[in-house]
Parts: sequence; C-alpha cells; structure tokens
Amino acid sequence: MTTEYRRLRVALLGAGSVGSQVAALLLQHEAELADRAGAHLELVGVAVRDIDAPRDTDIPRELLTTDAEPLLVGSDIVIELMGGIEPARSYLLQALSAGADVVTGNKALLATHGPALFEAADQVGASVHYEAAAAGAIPIIRPLRDSLAGDRVQRILAIVNGTTNYILDRMDLEGADYADVLADAQRLGYAEADPTADVEGYDAAQKAAILASLAFHTAVPLDAVHREGITSVDAPLIEAARKAGYVVKLLAVCERRTDDGREAISVRVHPALVRRDHPLASVHGANNAVFVQAEAAGDLMFYGAGAGGVQTASAVLGDLVSAARRHIAGGIGVGESTRANLPILPIGRATTRYQITLEVDDRPGVLATVAGILADGRVSIATVEQTIIPGDEQARARLVIGTHTALEQDLGETVQRLASSGVVYRVVSVLRMEGD
Amino acid sequence: MTTEYRRLRVALLGAGSVGSQVAALLLQHEAELADRAGAHLELVGVAVRDIDAPRDTDIPRELLTTDAEPLLVGSDIVIELMGGIEPARSYLLQALSAGADVVTGNKALLATHGPALFEAADQVGASVHYEAAAAGAIPIIRPLRDSLAGDRVQRILAIVNGTTNYILDRMDLEGADYADVLADAQRLGYAEADPTADVEGYDAAQKAAILASLAFHTAVPLDAVHREGITSVDAPLIEAARKAGYVVKLLAVCERRTDDGREAISVRVHPALVRRDHPLASVHGANNAVFVQAEAAGDLMFYGAGAGGVQTASAVLGDLVSAARRHIAGGIGVGESTRANLPILPIGRATTRYQITLEVDDRPGVLATVAGILADGRVSIATVEQTIIPGDEQARARLVIGTHTALEQDLGETVQRLASSGVVYRVVSVLRMEGD
Repeated sequence: MTTEYRRLRVALLGAGSVGSQVAALLLQHEAELADRAGAHLELVGVAVRDIDAPRDTDIPRELLTTDAEPLLVGSDIVIELMGGIEPARSYLLQALSAGADVVTGNKALLATHGPALFEAADQVGASVHYEAAAAGAIPIIRPLRDSLAGDRVQRILAIVNGTTNYILDRMDLEGADYADVLADAQRLGYAEADPTADVEGYDAAQKAAILASLAFHTAVPLDAVHREGITSVDAPLIEAARKAGYVVKLLAVCERRTDDGREAISVRVHPALVRRDHPLASVHGANNAVFVQAEAAGDLMFYGAGAGGVQTASAVLGDLVSAARRHIAGGIGVGESTRANLPILPIGRATTRYQITLEVDDRPGVLATVAGILADGRVSIATVEQTIIPGDEQARARLVIGTHTALEQDLGETVQRLASSGVVYRVVSVLRMEGD
Repeated sequence: MTTEYRRLRVALLGAGSVGSQVAALLLQHEAELADRAGAHLELVGVAVRDIDAPRDTDIPRELLTTDAEPLLVGSDIVIELMGGIEPARSYLLQALSAGADVVTGNKALLATHGPALFEAADQVGASVHYEAAAAGAIPIIRPLRDSLAGDRVQRILAIVNGTTNYILDRMDLEGADYADVLADAQRLGYAEADPTADVEGYDAAQKAAILASLAFHTAVPLDAVHREGITSVDAPLIEAARKAGYVVKLLAVCERRTDDGREAISVRVHPALVRRDHPLASVHGANNAVFVQAEAAGDLMFYGAGAGGVQTASAVLGDLVSAARRHIAGGIGVGESTRANLPILPIGRATTRYQITLEVDDRPGVLATVAGILADGRVSIATVEQTIIPGDEQARARLVIGTHTALEQDLGETVQRLASSGVVYRVVSVLRMEGD
C-alpha cells in the first residue's frame, strides 16, 4: 500500500556531526518517516560553509549550498544545527517570519535569544522545537512541557555535560588526577582540544537556563545562571567524598523556593556532593540524566546519551515529525510560556546544605570557637567529624562539617570569618550537597 | 493581570485513589492550570457509584452524581478513572462520538479495546490520552510517540509493576522468602489482599501491550503477550543470582526482531536475570522504570513512581492540559498509528539468553553428555560453572550454564531432553537473561 502524502519542504542549516546524521537518517528512512509524520518530508537543501568539507555521512552534492537565504523563505520546516549566535539567530527569525516551523539544537542561541525566537513564532502561530538543545538524545522537553503541565516542578538536578561527567567518573573510579584524566579524555575524543566550554560549566549553564525557563515558565537569561566548573576538583577531594559515601558531580540545579515570602527560583551550575544511593550517582561515563522533583509526580529521572551525532539526531528527527504533524493537523503550535516570570535569585540567596572541610589547630577550645562562628553566621551544624592529620608535625586536625540548609551568603561570610579566626589553618574545601 | 479564558467542560468518571486526587488538584490549582492550558478547566461533574463513600480528598457534594450519561454528551473532555472494561468502554465510546477528547488511566481497557477507542477518536478528530495507564507518573507515552517519532525503537525492558518490584527487591536485600515478603507487603499496603493481578503478571502484561503497541505501531492484543509471574521465584534462586552478579526482576520485554527473514515483534512478561550494573538493577522498592533501546538515540531510561494516587494524578492532569491545548489551538489530535502492524511472535519464537541450573550426577562423561544435548538442540554454551553440592551424599554436582542467544522453543525442547537424559538429576531453574 502506498499513501499519497502531502509534501513538506525541509531545509537543513549546518552539516556537522549532528546535521550530517540528520540528513542521512532523513534520506534513509524516507518512507517510514512519511508514515509517522503523515507527510512526505522532502529535504530541499543543506546550507554549509564549505561544500567540499569532509562529513560523517554522504549527502547528495546537489543538496549542498553555501547560500542559506533561499532555503529560509521557501521551506515549511527549517532545521538549524549550525551552532553559534550569528547568523543562526537572523536565519531563524527570517524563517519564522516566513511562517516556517523551526527545529534547533542550538543551546547557546536559545539560552541568549530564546524569548525573541518564541515571540517571533507566536506572531505567526508557528513553533520552535528544541529537544536536542537540552540534554542531547534524552527526551526531556516534552515531559517538562506536556507530561508535567498539570503538575508543579519543584527542583531539577541534572547532569547535562557528558565531558565533565566522564572526567569526574574516571577520577572517582580510578583515583586519578584531573589533569591526567582530562588529557586522556582529549585523546579519546571525550573532550575538546580547548575544553573550556565543558570544564568551566558554560555548556551546562546554557542547558540549565533552557530547563529552568521551561520548568518554571520564566525567561531565564544565561547571565542569571551562577556557574562554577570542575577545574578545582582534585583527587583528594574526590577521595574524601568517596570515603564519606558521596560522589562529586557537576550539577545543573534549578529550584523553586520561597525567598523573603515571595516565590522565586535559583538556577546554578557547580560541582556538588551527591549521596551514592541517589539515582544520579549511578550515571557513569559520558551519560547524562535529568532528575526532576514534582509536587504530585514525586521523583522522576530521565537518563541517556547527552551528546553524540546520531544520538542527538534522534531528538532532532522527533522534533521534525512533531512539526510536520502540526502542519498536517492544522492549529497553532504550543507557545513557550513565561507567564510566571518568577524572580531569579542571585547566588547569595540560594539555599542548600554544605560540607566544609577545615584544617585546624589541634588544641582545646578550637571546636568551640569554630562552632561559635558558625552559629553566629546562622549556619547550623548537622554533622561534624574531627580527625588527626597523620604524620603532621604541627599538631593539626581535619574538621569536616556538614551543615543543615543555609543561605549561600551566610555561608560565604561565615567561611571567611572562619578563615581569619586564628584557629583555622586552612579552608580545604567548601562543597554544596544536593539531592538529600 | 487576569486573562479571560475560554471555558472547557471537564467530566470525571470515577473518584477512587487517583480520581479523587485529580478532582482535588483540578479545584486547588484552577488558576495555574488555566494559564497552562490556555483555557479555564471547569469540573462539571464527577460520576461515582456511591455518593457517600469515603474518599481520599474532599469533592464538593454538588459535583458528585451516580448518573454518568449526562456528563458524556455535554463535556469537552472526559476523564475516565473507573477501571474495568464495562461500563468504561461504552462511556468512552459515547463521549468520543459526541466529540469529546478522552483522558484515561484504564490499562485493562486499553490493552483489550484500545484500537476501537482510537478508531472512534479518529472519526471525529478527537484524541485519547493515556499517560497514566502505562507507567503511572513516569512520562513515557510522549517520549515514545513524539520524541522518538523519527527514531526506531528496538527494545523496551520495563519494570512496570511496583508490587512485584517491591517484593523481589526485598527478597534480594534481605534474603527473605517470597511468602513472608508478600505477607509483609500486604500488611504495608504495597500488595492487595488478592495479589493475583500483580504477582501473576497480569498488570504488567496490560502495560506491555500498551507500550509495545505504541513503540512498534502495531495493535498488540493482550492475549498475544506471554505472561509469567513471580510466584515460583524463591530465596535460593535469588541468592544464586546475587552470587553470580545478577538481580531478578519482573520485566515487560517488547522487542523487534527478524524472524525467518521477516520483521516481527515479541512481547512478554516474565522474571529475568538482569546484570547488577544495568540501570534497571538499581530500581528499588515500588519504583518503576522503562529502559528503551532505540536505533539512533541509543539507551534511554525513564524512572519514577509507577503507582500512587497523587503521583498518577500528575500524569492525568498533564494529559488534561494537552487535550485542552488542542481544543484551543484547533487542529485534529495525533492518532494512534498501527501502520506497521508487525506480526507478533508466539513465545516459542522469542530469542534471548538463558541461565540453566541443573543438578547432575558427578561422574565422568556427564558434562560431555549435557554439552552434546545442548549442541544437538541448537543451544550454544557461553559460560559453564560446575560445583560440588556440599554435603551431598549421592555425589551430585550443580551445573550452571549460561547460553548464547537461543530460540525459546529450541531451549524448551533441549531442557526436556536434558531432564530425561539419565545424567540430570534435577532441573533447578531456567531463567531468561535480559539486558546484556
């Protein structure tokens, strides 16, 4: 049986590792995709910078063009996988104003110009699909936007950067040092030659902005996301965490909380201690996972490959089929909602639990002094463990303090007071504890 | 700012543990749901069997009625949480033919009369939403139907019954016996007084039929699902699995495979050995998880609460908001596709790996005889471990054989031949190994 389907014109901008796989899958699974979309998805052109550049898959030469503009006005659906802000932003605004639906995997663009794109889409009743931008192949956009639409998300804890998870996981498993594992990760292709975007948390911060915007119906600009990377995580810190029953993960944390009597959100990316029996602790290698706590649904977790050309292409094709179905079914796309527009707290107003590791003089009264400074700073102690530092000539002890939930600015000021108290020899580390 | 929304009339059929939570959330979060749906969702009535029955939440008495019929014709959206086949089936067909969208959590109904409901919806351009029927609060329907629409699902391994997972998990953690844990689970409310639907795998089989239908675009009738429960799983079996690095889980297995050169699917529910480092092995207590292997996306897992009134209500409300958005946006609903309609293999044509545990006479030539019978039966040995049974007077040994992938009917015939071979004293267990 052959069905005569309506034809939809699909343009592809960019043919890198994801784009070339999207083109290949579109051409290979033409008939199956037509059945699923209810429309024949005709790839009308692939805009690239260099027609002769080597690619992961074969794309018919006649589809390749260096001139994107004609593709923007004559297409029903435009897929953007170029990355970067310009010309991606101008191209997509042009495509939307011409009435095309847009599919993009461009997290940098969404995290900085998302609202402008969504508004342009709203004006023509088109939609912007971006499953590939949040957590690679893991379906998280539809669950947050649709499945949990009648619920209220309280918190998202997410491992959204494969490179840093790979590095931290190997440090945890092998007791290896950061620099060694990074070098190995670069050799194996898990990390870029310039790893800054990953190890400094920029990539994760973009994804945090996208997830928080969606979960809390709030426009979250990238510069409102507090960001810390993993470059200061060393082997002794991982080892101490392991002994205490924790693993160190780079987390994107998006949470709703009450601040000074008003509802607000906190969005941040930083290394954190996660209990070993938490579902996120078992996310190994370059895998990603998004742990969601919702008021009614309780704890949910979404796990899978966070990157990879063909894996991410799956998310892009899912979006493409959704966009095509909307074209066929009629009606307008589901707009992005920023109707809540909750205030976004600065990092100082965030609250969480902390683990503070100190080297202190091992003499009477020191613990009382430390405890007094914490109490004065409104930081309440949950656990404390003091151990002698073996072989230390200066009679120093190590003090590991786990706090109850405290305000970040209180904690920061308290740690400064500890450092200058005269009884603390060295602040070894201050780590946030998440997921308890 | 108040927005004047269009009103949509919502009827609720059934006010048990899920239904009463749905009613409560609908009334409590009226304004927030209106913002999300783009429509005011007006609960016009709740059909129940007994108006005075005790309920988990307060529902205004004037909304309760024992007469469902008037609600079916005058509503925009009908939510069915009565359970059972009749009158749920007739009510939903009536509602659909009157043009209402339908939200249901009724897995028994979907697994037996799904195609008739979907066809009735198609005829009027309405849609049937059933997120709550597949895995409780876990968003799995939209990921399978939409996010993976451009991909090809190869296999689903799912823990979709909380009661049996709770029982098997406690047996694994405590070394306890099935009957003791079941009794305790009944006392704690994790298992029903009559546990048959759970422990014999009926509930899981219904969910397997729903998941397989969606994943493979094939109408999977409930009686095509092979079903085995956990009543024969005992403490020694769990202990032997534990020692070998496995955990026993009741799995719903839905897989695509090539049989005699044609594409086909196998859908089955049975206890299986799962490697301890597999993501499904860390699903504890009454939690559920759906592990999906897709051609492009690779391995994905969706984890969360598989049951519970308020948790499942979250899935129902998500569906309600989706249905409302469709009403507002216009256009027709995404129909359920059975366009592939792949043949469903009988259990004999399933393929997997097996662990066969035998007690054999401990004398020369026995292993050769056993190996010969396996080879004759086209069952290839991957691993073998022979141990002396301590303190056994009759000089018997225990033989644990792990096979390569074999055809179920070959395996069954081979085990019968082993049992009657004269060298095998007892077939201790035959278990499928999944997820390797």
